Amino acid sequence: MMPRTVADHALRTRLALPYEQAVEKTVTALREEGFGVLTEVDVQATLEEKLDVEFREYVIMGVCNPPLAHQALSTDLDIGLLLPCNVIVYEDDGESVVAILDPISMLGLVENPDLAPVAQEARARLRRVIEVVGTG
Amino acid sequence: MMPRTVADHALRTRLALPYEQAVEKTVTALREEGFGVLTEVDVQATLEEKLDVEFREYVIMGVCNPPLAHQALSTDLDIGLLLPCNVIVYEDDGESVVAILDPISMLGLVENPDLAPVAQEARARLRRVIEVVGTG
Repeated sequence: MMPRTVADHALRTRLALPYEQAVEKTVTALREEGFGVLTEVDVQATLEEKLDVEFREYVIMGVCNPPLAHQALSTDLDIGLLLPCNVIVYEDDGESVVAILDPISMLGLVENPDLAPVAQEARARLRRVIEVVGTG
Repeated sequence: MMPRTVADHALRTRLALPYEQAVEKTVTALREEGFGVLTEVDVQATLEEKLDVEFREYVIMGVCNPPLAHQALSTDLDIGLLLPCNVIVYEDDGESVVAILDPISMLGLVENPDLAPVAQEARARLRRVIEVVGTG
């Protein structure tokens, strides 16, 4: 059996688009589903600045749907440890990969049934994001 | 058996300090262990702005030790989905709670033995952070 990788816990797609356009398309699709980008880490720039190493174009965005986040925080105050939801976009052979951490996988860490509806709603929206991003 | 909560996957301490001072102490302790703060979500301000609801003082910081992050990304490109490492600080009855998501718990999602030394090193450093923050 192959070892699991983090990709097994992700909603994921590959686009025949350059990096910058893939990021733009992803942010637009997230907005359509009510997710705003709260944080952004430019991995390439950070690794160059801190370690002077070269790395591919790669962004880690922390995205949040405010009503869902509020509901989750009101159910488990420490759920902020799993928020905001991570979305990555990176360059791969002239194309781009977009992946979103699956809220249901993260829920597996918690086992709180009261959080299930929130995670399911978030997952449904983020699946639509990945479908839209991966189409056309 | 009590259901697990996200706190079961966290390194955690409680301080008899007001929120602002707890945040400052945490950032200083993180810096001593080579972790910089890459992102910051002011949960109280965000919920007020987006939903017009009141919430306690609460920050979600994304922290990163660049050499460890680079090692992790070189082992599993998609590990950015689990980076940066989340640290939360929130007000609780005039005191403060500080919690850090345990890298070893997150590694349980991945099962990649090549990532174990990185997660162990990160955990050792973050445990020292929690010890320092929780002392004196």
